[in-house]
Amino acid sequence: MQIPSNAFNNAVDQLSSLPGIGKKTALRLVLHLLNRPSNDIKLFGNSFTELAEQINYCQNCFYISESTHCSICNNPSRTENIVCVVENVLDVIAIENTNQFKGKYHVLGGIISPMEGIGPSDIKINELIERVKSNQTEELIMALSTTMEGDATNFYIYKKLKDTGVKISTIARGIGIGDELEYTDELTLGRSIINRIPFENTLTL
Amino acid sequence: MQIPSNAFNNAVDQLSSLPGIGKKTALRLVLHLLNRPSNDIKLFGNSFTELAEQINYCQNCFYISESTHCSICNNPSRTENIVCVVENVLDVIAIENTNQFKGKYHVLGGIISPMEGIGPSDIKINELIERVKSNQTEELIMALSTTMEGDATNFYIYKKLKDTGVKISTIARGIGIGDELEYTDELTLGRSIINRIPFENTLTL
Repeated sequence: MQIPSNAFNNAVDQLSSLPGIGKKTALRLVLHLLNRPSNDIKLFGNSFTELAEQINYCQNCFYISESTHCSICNNPSRTENIVCVVENVLDVIAIENTNQFKGKYHVLGGIISPMEGIGPSDIKINELIERVKSNQTEELIMALSTTMEGDATNFYIYKKLKDTGVKISTIARGIGIGDELEYTDELTLGRSIINRIPFENTLTL
Repeated sequence: MQIPSNAFNNAVDQLSSLPGIGKKTALRLVLHLLNRPSNDIKLFGNSFTELAEQINYCQNCFYISESTHCSICNNPSRTENIVCVVENVLDVIAIENTNQFKGKYHVLGGIISPMEGIGPSDIKINELIERVKSNQTEELIMALSTTMEGDATNFYIYKKLKDTGVKISTIARGIGIGDELEYTDELTLGRSIINRIPFENTLTL
């Protein structure tokens, strides 16, 4: 049985189009919204129309920005020569929260995923190559997920840039701090032995 | 670290105001929305502003409706004399899907919950009492949740109406069809013995 209101069903359809929100959850959320005053529901809706109208990306790194260049790109104390390549905006926030990186970013806005029909031209790879070539970037730090898609994207970018002389590194893969050896998967443990680091390096932190 | 866009943060705040959606989930959902064309994001937002403007409730039973009376209240083949009292719109759909009820509904729009500050005047109890008195309703079937709040609401309505002569029943509580005895909680099992039904009654279904 359907609910006899197009406006209601439309709102349910829109909410359930988001990942992780099924039809039944969407129904409950819309009913929850309907308990609010009409003006609050309008504010809810307007926040998304305003998002569509006002959102802006940095023309250099494609991080979210209120002007043509974001606060990270505009920061003169950050080095221009080291660029960290990430999948999305959340990754920038995660890395910024570590306070360990003082270079710039490049937000791809996705990773290459043939399963989802995302190819190199759908994300900001050409812009990255252009940027590396024109800015004389010294080092690219690839900070993508350790998945098939992440590895494919890493390799694609590596192949496109290996002749430019830019140094390409990836963030270290290994056992998380606080993790126990016996619960670590074999692949991670194996890689952490192959990519072992001089003990002195851990003392400088 | 905050994302430098008011529109973005506002959309995240609005989404995370929904129950079950935390700040981090809301961030991911907004980023997901931003992968869509600008017009689709506007359609998403507009669906809620239209919801606020166009939603309408049946003046009789408070089910969602496109006109002053809903399709259930307008259906002449359904008896006016038996009214099923439910908490919200989803409960109407759940009962309609059983095809076992041919009376009308009354949607309270919530249940009495002192913890959440919801009293009798915040839900459609006065309207129910008015309706029972003026329509000469014969039977009220209380179909609220078996929680403290549901029981309190049942009892409040019972006290308000016991002198009017209307018959008040509640839907049967017992062991679900397909459930195993050994996994049923004691309270339900105990009640199902106290409220046992003549075996012949089960044969008519």
